[in-house]
Amino acid sequence: MSAVATRKPSRRNKTAVQPAPPIRPGMEGGQYKPFTQPDLERVHALVLKLLEDLGLSQITPSLEARAIEAGCWVDENGRLRFPRALVEDVIARTRRKFTLHGIDPRHDLEIGGKRVHAGTGGAAPTIMDFDTGKYRESTVADLYDVARLVDRLDNVHWYHRSIVARDAKSVLDLDINTTYACLAGTTKSIAVSYTDAASVKAVIPMLDAVAGGAGEFRKRPFCTAVCCHVVPPMRFATESCDALEAAVVAGMPILLVAAGQAGATAPAALAGAVAQACAEVLAGLVLCNVIDPNCRAIFATWPFVSDLRTGAMSGGSGEQALLSAACAQMAGFYDLPNSVPAGMTDSKLPDMQAGGEKGYTISLAAHAGASMIHESAGMQGSLMGTSLESYVLDNDLLGAILRTVKGVEVTEDTLNFDVIRDVVMGEGHYLGHPQTFERMKTDYLYPDIADRRSISEWEEAGARDARDVARDTVRRVLSEHYPSHIPEAVDTQLRDTFNIILPKARMRPGNGVW
Amino acid sequence: MSAVATRKPSRRNKTAVQPAPPIRPGMEGGQYKPFTQPDLERVHALVLKLLEDLGLSQITPSLEARAIEAGCWVDENGRLRFPRALVEDVIARTRRKFTLHGIDPRHDLEIGGKRVHAGTGGAAPTIMDFDTGKYRESTVADLYDVARLVDRLDNVHWYHRSIVARDAKSVLDLDINTTYACLAGTTKSIAVSYTDAASVKAVIPMLDAVAGGAGEFRKRPFCTAVCCHVVPPMRFATESCDALEAAVVAGMPILLVAAGQAGATAPAALAGAVAQACAEVLAGLVLCNVIDPNCRAIFATWPFVSDLRTGAMSGGSGEQALLSAACAQMAGFYDLPNSVPAGMTDSKLPDMQAGGEKGYTISLAAHAGASMIHESAGMQGSLMGTSLESYVLDNDLLGAILRTVKGVEVTEDTLNFDVIRDVVMGEGHYLGHPQTFERMKTDYLYPDIADRRSISEWEEAGARDARDVARDTVRRVLSEHYPSHIPEAVDTQLRDTFNIILPKARMRPGNGVW
Repeated sequence: MSAVATRKPSRRNKTAVQPAPPIRPGMEGGQYKPFTQPDLERVHALVLKLLEDLGLSQITPSLEARAIEAGCWVDENGRLRFPRALVEDVIARTRRKFTLHGIDPRHDLEIGGKRVHAGTGGAAPTIMDFDTGKYRESTVADLYDVARLVDRLDNVHWYHRSIVARDAKSVLDLDINTTYACLAGTTKSIAVSYTDAASVKAVIPMLDAVAGGAGEFRKRPFCTAVCCHVVPPMRFATESCDALEAAVVAGMPILLVAAGQAGATAPAALAGAVAQACAEVLAGLVLCNVIDPNCRAIFATWPFVSDLRTGAMSGGSGEQALLSAACAQMAGFYDLPNSVPAGMTDSKLPDMQAGGEKGYTISLAAHAGASMIHESAGMQGSLMGTSLESYVLDNDLLGAILRTVKGVEVTEDTLNFDVIRDVVMGEGHYLGHPQTFERMKTDYLYPDIADRRSISEWEEAGARDARDVARDTVRRVLSEHYPSHIPEAVDTQLRDTFNIILPKARMRPGNGVW
Repeated sequence: MSAVATRKPSRRNKTAVQPAPPIRPGMEGGQYKPFTQPDLERVHALVLKLLEDLGLSQITPSLEARAIEAGCWVDENGRLRFPRALVEDVIARTRRKFTLHGIDPRHDLEIGGKRVHAGTGGAAPTIMDFDTGKYRESTVADLYDVARLVDRLDNVHWYHRSIVARDAKSVLDLDINTTYACLAGTTKSIAVSYTDAASVKAVIPMLDAVAGGAGEFRKRPFCTAVCCHVVPPMRFATESCDALEAAVVAGMPILLVAAGQAGATAPAALAGAVAQACAEVLAGLVLCNVIDPNCRAIFATWPFVSDLRTGAMSGGSGEQALLSAACAQMAGFYDLPNSVPAGMTDSKLPDMQAGGEKGYTISLAAHAGASMIHESAGMQGSLMGTSLESYVLDNDLLGAILRTVKGVEVTEDTLNFDVIRDVVMGEGHYLGHPQTFERMKTDYLYPDIADRRSISEWEEAGARDARDVARDTVRRVLSEHYPSHIPEAVDTQLRDTFNIILPKARMRPGNGVW
């Protein structure tokens, strides 16, 4: 029982309608502006110059033909150049918002404007084994478990595959099994990284089957294709461009990722790294638009940071927080549905370092107004690892950060002289005031994991750290939550058609693992 | 050797002048604006109304007389009312900036504008014992140890006493010994909470002695008086007002703290809590100004959050992050040197929860442009505890956050087309580019504690968590760093004059504790 409820329980029952929850997906950010308006315009000027005067090399023949038809040209070095008028025109006519569908429509997200969402991302090759605490190669079963866990975490708004199934033997097997494990483990929107067109074509029948039949996926495309269409600096990734073309044709949303690393494959100067990333993503956006002007493209500027002492990536640095926030603001300048990475701690454990790095990187990206914050749950070790506990811990952290995005409501009621005067001249405290009861449910978020007890209560309860507490949630969810949204007949059909690695028996309670 | 340095060491030696470090105290924040301009004005309107139409009760006779002389009046309920013209006038004429002196001038801080600084604060009654890991009552020796530790942590810009010396027997002994332990342990600016005038008067000779003689402290006042001059809601704290008067008269900087708790001693509606805090601090500011128009006052709106289920304070919540950021923005609206609290995790351990809560609360306060972020190092358990490891960990976190405050530099050099073109058309990577060498030292901050190694390197080195690594720093600093800025003769004089609890032998290496 709460202190408030204990004092005056009757008042709480007066409200017949359910109060609005303190947070929801898609609250508006954008109140943090790392760039001034002139800064934004200067970055944009370089972006246009890079596209027109330098261009990108190694475009595919098919896309080259389409791009030239749209107004691009190829220079004497074989680089595809983008006239600034074309780029400006593509920015102007690209969809400003669209629905990123969940497998279940209740997980649909409206992407665009300053609406902020958070979810997973990444391609970690390892996972911290839940039993041994040691990192090991990740498997398709891990992918399925993470999907099930994310399915139950309210502040993780989608499940984009965060680990690589190392037990898949070929690229095609990997892509098919990754898609299947995501589909089977969650009803949220999913995403898979497809690096060739064959994979995209192979999975469409699977997506259609889950959507309800041939042609159905296209109506509610709940699987995004992650396309690293460039190899920074300023070069197209040929096979990924083929995958991109196939995915756009299939009606999939496209996450257009440019993941240069400042100081290595992007300028060490942060502003330059932002400009290069914007140019690289806009190049992809032009391609998407020449394939289908109605495509669902996500402007995913993901410049990373190098620790220049070693050349290693640092995902948790202050510089990374700035790069991601600055990119979110640039995307807002273009008014394009967008994504930035944040939450990519360099720590190998869900410890104080991880919390701190996730805290400032995610909150600055969110307040800069990122549509989608990828990598914001579960990642460890500069994206090279993941841990089950982290998804649970990060969900809690995301809740608090999303609460800050909701902001401070300024209304007649929140700035009410009479409330203050009545308390001051009366009881002397606000605990029993009706406003306190009303605000308790709508304005205050109560965490699942974060411990707010007194030192003595916490000590008496075993003095556990947050990671240990999160393990309880992992165990509970993974032993009980086996989503069953894919009908048995459809699953059988998929298993008959595709080389599915995940055993059927692993997808039921009492499987001997959980 | 770094990767960069190994490749082309000769280039690094070309720069004769030392490059500017990536961060410094007092970089400008203010790019995060939780309130719109109309919001700020609405809050301000309520602030003025609260001061004029409700006022504060329980003013001291001495200050009442001075306030009435300045234009205030006392209503039929004995409440001191503040005409809005007087309040506006006081805001307009209060010092916009001043030097917050360090004991050593190299730690002087210029407080005012949007310049951001971070340091300690608080009054934790317990400390997590470094050896046992259990919380116990804190002592004056702990206070001295924390001061020594902070003295070596570059991103903790001052040492305001963060723990209560429970081994002091009286208020006077507490205040004298707290002041002494802070003075002896660091050369940074210090602060002590004085709750009566006698304590203030008692310590002035000690401060003068350390400053170099009678009357010297006033010339470079390096000790701030923390004055909780109000008991929210809207009531003066009589004894603290006496202390405030004595401190202003003595020339001490004053931290004017209003620490209501939203939902208990301040409105549950966050905007209302901000308005009440502003009104309470402005009431104190009027008092300071009527005592000395040239006073060094710090607008310290510190509204806290209640977990309304239990009534307990939650320092790590998203709501707290908003309250502190919103208050910093209000102080910016008034253009007053200010302070907000952030970093007040509810976790009892330096774990993932602590990191996350500190990460978002401190970063949002900093980006909102707070002059001073108090409580930003060392705190645990909703301000009820502290731990030595946390100071070290938080120093690292503060560095990264301050790096984000520095922002993204937009110049000809950072947005250089030629750099990108040369790399793209040449080597294909930026590692060897002169710009990378130049930016490495000025734009990139390298943490002391945060681990950026690969998973395998980290495992081979013992797979330690951040807390464990921080313990090495605590041990090293506390066993070797015994500041000696107080001359032996002065110390002897202080020990002859005051009841100093801390044994002299404890202030030397090899004391059997460290």
